[in-house]
Amino acid sequence: MDIHALTRQLHTKSDSKIVLLVADGLGGLPMSPEGKTELETAATPNLDALAKVGVQGGSIPVCPGISPGSGPGHLGLFGYDPVQYLIGRGALEATGIGFQLEKEDVAARGNFCTLDAAGKITDRRAGRIPTDESTPLAIKLREVKIPGCQTFVEPVKEHRFVVVFRGPGLADSVKDTDPQAVGVPPLQAEATDAASGRMAEVANQWIAAATRLLAGQKKANGLMLRGFAARPNLPSYREVYGLRAAAIAVYPMYKGLARLVGMDIVGQAQTLAEQLTLLEQNWNKYDFFFLHYKYTDSTGEDGNFAAKVKKIEEFDDAIPRVAALKPKVLIVTGDHSTPSYLRSHSWHPVPTLLVSDCCRPDGHTTFGENTAVRGGLGQFEAKYLMTLALANAGRLAKYGA
Amino acid sequence: MDIHALTRQLHTKSDSKIVLLVADGLGGLPMSPEGKTELETAATPNLDALAKVGVQGGSIPVCPGISPGSGPGHLGLFGYDPVQYLIGRGALEATGIGFQLEKEDVAARGNFCTLDAAGKITDRRAGRIPTDESTPLAIKLREVKIPGCQTFVEPVKEHRFVVVFRGPGLADSVKDTDPQAVGVPPLQAEATDAASGRMAEVANQWIAAATRLLAGQKKANGLMLRGFAARPNLPSYREVYGLRAAAIAVYPMYKGLARLVGMDIVGQAQTLAEQLTLLEQNWNKYDFFFLHYKYTDSTGEDGNFAAKVKKIEEFDDAIPRVAALKPKVLIVTGDHSTPSYLRSHSWHPVPTLLVSDCCRPDGHTTFGENTAVRGGLGQFEAKYLMTLALANAGRLAKYGA
Repeated sequence: MDIHALTRQLHTKSDSKIVLLVADGLGGLPMSPEGKTELETAATPNLDALAKVGVQGGSIPVCPGISPGSGPGHLGLFGYDPVQYLIGRGALEATGIGFQLEKEDVAARGNFCTLDAAGKITDRRAGRIPTDESTPLAIKLREVKIPGCQTFVEPVKEHRFVVVFRGPGLADSVKDTDPQAVGVPPLQAEATDAASGRMAEVANQWIAAATRLLAGQKKANGLMLRGFAARPNLPSYREVYGLRAAAIAVYPMYKGLARLVGMDIVGQAQTLAEQLTLLEQNWNKYDFFFLHYKYTDSTGEDGNFAAKVKKIEEFDDAIPRVAALKPKVLIVTGDHSTPSYLRSHSWHPVPTLLVSDCCRPDGHTTFGENTAVRGGLGQFEAKYLMTLALANAGRLAKYGA
Repeated sequence: MDIHALTRQLHTKSDSKIVLLVADGLGGLPMSPEGKTELETAATPNLDALAKVGVQGGSIPVCPGISPGSGPGHLGLFGYDPVQYLIGRGALEATGIGFQLEKEDVAARGNFCTLDAAGKITDRRAGRIPTDESTPLAIKLREVKIPGCQTFVEPVKEHRFVVVFRGPGLADSVKDTDPQAVGVPPLQAEATDAASGRMAEVANQWIAAATRLLAGQKKANGLMLRGFAARPNLPSYREVYGLRAAAIAVYPMYKGLARLVGMDIVGQAQTLAEQLTLLEQNWNKYDFFFLHYKYTDSTGEDGNFAAKVKKIEEFDDAIPRVAALKPKVLIVTGDHSTPSYLRSHSWHPVPTLLVSDCCRPDGHTTFGENTAVRGGLGQFEAKYLMTLALANAGRLAKYGA
């Protein structure tokens, strides 16, 4: 079902405000079967107070058992079916470093590699070249000029970079040039449909010229491109929900994802306190606020249970400043779980709390994984969170007479 | 997924009986976060007794956050995906007043309006003309004759009426003639596809002749047509479920919706007691009984919490007479929630109770919103209620070997 076919037709005018607080990777696991999760261990008096007047549920990012990356995790929360809407690797990589893709751009992820005298790959990661050595090389590649096509090269970490091609007639059905093996040369870029022939041709010209520029480098004397991807064509928040939306995030990836759905990126906060100040300052300018908090994910990825507990407690400390603004709808959730036990994103339902005057409270008095999966919202696919938000905000008309 | 592709193939013969009791708008909300809902407040000893031997769940009418009208609400309960099967406004309006649409009919909702000397609209609702003035005008419009096309005009309330066009070559892709503004004349009916050209032509002839008949009226000297809609093409209960189905309802809308899925309309009950008598009298003639109770919705729409509680208690009083018939499957649910707090239909899951000898009771001892959403049926889309009913009735064969 296309949810937006419903919301486009049903959204109504209102001055109600919706706040979506995303604690990245919020959900967790106990370290032993009888233990508590990070969220259940943390002292969260402010979230627990919301739980008493709110309704909880377990948000399933994609479908049961599927662990999403940041892209599909956030698209789901934003109400875009993460299976229907794909962000290709190149486009996500560009988004993640803050590159603003334009409509006809094609982005690819680049890897430096080491080639032998015969042009065969001896190291697919250029000897894990450090970032301070690879960055000047990526910048040097900006010298490559292709007639009729602009190119942009941006360094990423270690052997990685991003290249963006901009020009008429480009499309992204092009195979990777990485053979996924050593002892063979990089592959030629090859189009898999007619519309992408020009892109493959440009890519091969660019690779040839770039490789000539790298001649003489000891580690990074070659390169491979992967994940050719155009900017995903996502309808905007304004169009599908009738919302003027603001994103208040610290990291480029989350600003980029929000920009893809038409949110305005507000301010340049570096701390949660600065994010809250931006929320307060912009309160009258927008209908919807997405506020992203990173550290519940990064501590989980580090496998540091105690640090994740602490970061959840710092997040809890921020709740009163948000609640003081009296949003009509306040939602606390995550884009996925990142259990310290697994040190990675996971598929587990994400504890989600929704508070409004008409949310039908479910009688829980604390906020955690085990209350959430038994909560009044049940377990639901993340993509329905936005229709729930709009409904609770009084922003959806009745469907059918 | 097309549920009926499964049920068509799997339904089996049986003499088991299924009763579907629909308390319209059953679900509610507490008036304050720590309070109880209408159903939780009501004394419902008979429903609670069923809860002890039954299984509960929260029925989601369309999808999370979407509040349905009566049409999609009931189609869902009847097992027809309410997004896939649309009932256009004109067809629903005709259905709602008991007009039996035939296969090729096109119905439209009419509004009387006031026109100035230049033919421009000065009041889109004809000065909110009272029903006793508008009814004779609607009946007068029956005098309009269009060659090659039968027309039927039925009064509704105040400025509203229904017109049905019957004849060869009609289709319903025709735009509204209501410009949604005053100071301009009504629009011409305009077809948006080739198949609907004849309908637009007939509509314009009819409107011109009808407007001439209204000349001299002070308030209602013009009219506009909206929501052109053919009879929806719904497969029948007999075909998709193998059920002989009876509808026992008081109000025309619910009889009409039941007729659209091939149920027989039984009797002309005016009270719940009369509905129960009809249920008893027709017990041997049908496999499936849909009994509709309106007052849980209308009291909710009035915002009258205490009155809704009382109407739920009256509904509870009816349970023993139904249970005494010993249906193999007894279901109690609503087509949507109508919380007194919101005074409108809402999206909240509808408390649903299913009792059969093989329903796997879930240990709850009372029936209410918070037990339902934590019940053994979990939260489920309303469209799956009929497969659950058929399964519990022993009316579905195994799928696959």
